[in-house]
Amino acid sequence: MIETDAPPHPFDAAIALPPAVDGRTTTRTRPEYANMVGPFGGITAATLVQAVQQHPDRLGDPLSLTVNYAAPVADGDFDITARVVRSNRTNQHWTLELSQDGDVKTTATAVFGVHRDTWSDTEAGMPPVPPPDAVPVQEFPDFIAWARNYEMRFVEGAVPGQDAGEHPDSTTTLWVRDAPARPLDFPALASMCDVFYPRVFLRRGRYVAAGTVSLTVYFHADAGEIAAHGGDHVLGTARTGRFSRGYFDQTARLWGRDGTLLASSHQLVYFKD
Amino acid sequence: MIETDAPPHPFDAAIALPPAVDGRTTTRTRPEYANMVGPFGGITAATLVQAVQQHPDRLGDPLSLTVNYAAPVADGDFDITARVVRSNRTNQHWTLELSQDGDVKTTATAVFGVHRDTWSDTEAGMPPVPPPDAVPVQEFPDFIAWARNYEMRFVEGAVPGQDAGEHPDSTTTLWVRDAPARPLDFPALASMCDVFYPRVFLRRGRYVAAGTVSLTVYFHADAGEIAAHGGDHVLGTARTGRFSRGYFDQTARLWGRDGTLLASSHQLVYFKD
Repeated sequence: MIETDAPPHPFDAAIALPPAVDGRTTTRTRPEYANMVGPFGGITAATLVQAVQQHPDRLGDPLSLTVNYAAPVADGDFDITARVVRSNRTNQHWTLELSQDGDVKTTATAVFGVHRDTWSDTEAGMPPVPPPDAVPVQEFPDFIAWARNYEMRFVEGAVPGQDAGEHPDSTTTLWVRDAPARPLDFPALASMCDVFYPRVFLRRGRYVAAGTVSLTVYFHADAGEIAAHGGDHVLGTARTGRFSRGYFDQTARLWGRDGTLLASSHQLVYFKD
Repeated sequence: MIETDAPPHPFDAAIALPPAVDGRTTTRTRPEYANMVGPFGGITAATLVQAVQQHPDRLGDPLSLTVNYAAPVADGDFDITARVVRSNRTNQHWTLELSQDGDVKTTATAVFGVHRDTWSDTEAGMPPVPPPDAVPVQEFPDFIAWARNYEMRFVEGAVPGQDAGEHPDSTTTLWVRDAPARPLDFPALASMCDVFYPRVFLRRGRYVAAGTVSLTVYFHADAGEIAAHGGDHVLGTARTGRFSRGYFDQTARLWGRDGTLLASSHQLVYFKD
């Protein structure tokens, strides 16, 4: 590190946590990752991963994470509690809560574990796409603060503009990386799983009230693959299976440029329309 | 009901729970739903859904469920605690724990909520398959007790026999229903999300040590669709995205015969090979 006086990357500032005392630590929301109501769900997921990663009892690397967004996190201080409910020989189960003034805003569970060499294969095919440099960067509307911290190059399914009209399917595929660029790590990967704006916007061609209810991330990449990825672009693709009676699902996959499936992610979203 | 003296369906017996006292209820494992090590994960998921459904504070119907299988449940008594962490106007967040002698074996979170009429559409296409009557029933090996409670008709990706050899992809598609038949409900749907034997068996053409680490279910069907389904067959299809260094994911969809997407399900599975 040469620039010792450089301010931290906004992502590092957002997920930084003081050491926990009795399993609880306190931090605060950052305006850089604000969403329309409360913080961007991805930064909350990343902060929860970080809470486990820096816990002295942590075993191995993240395997799965489920975050339930129970209520909007208000601007200001919040507490995170992380509790090991079970440590096995090769994996470990965690429960987490994010609260403000004793009021639970987010719950989560995580499984961490050790990787072993086994037979391996990737069945999911990376979509055929042009390289990131061949796809223009799309600016998000100014009022979506968190999006300014991501460089997004939409291959298909970009954010609908005014009068976009209905779209026949909900697929969005994009190249994404932190802006400014930052080496990938597990918290950043968790956060990128939530960069897909609500699929109902694309289908309907306009903004409607929508918010993630539950987000699950499966981390396929191990620490070596994450390190090898570095600050390169990630290819993300997301699609809904069913929109029905106020809720829809989203399934997403995130890839390295070389075809490494880094993560799979699923979410359930509420909407009004 | 005419046959008032008939014994309950094995599924109803397995998920029956005494009323909770201070949020805790005690029941026991059933030999009918035993798996190779501990009970079938699906029956555990179903019992957790049931614990919330019969809770006096429950609001609405299941929307999402995540179950983390932290350790095998031993044959015998177990306790379930279900706690509402937040009730909003239209949805409600739960955390659950299953323990034996104070030792946590399973954790879960669930979101329940109210359905509202909105714009709706199903994008996921049901696979083109023959009707259930045109597909033979496959018997499972005798030592898989739980499978005797399901009638399974494999359209593709049946359980590999001796010397099956490697298979090029991990897709299993089957018609499934309770045996004997039983009207579908939310616990039964949760359980059916876990009827897919480990995808690594199919790829490798043989049994290997494998077990679900985390299971997520999104319930797309509302109570009316569940009731309309009745005791008919459910079409399930499941596939893995990536097998790597001891873990693989599985994404599954469950359909009614008329093309209603009843549920989406995802899981992370550990394996040794």
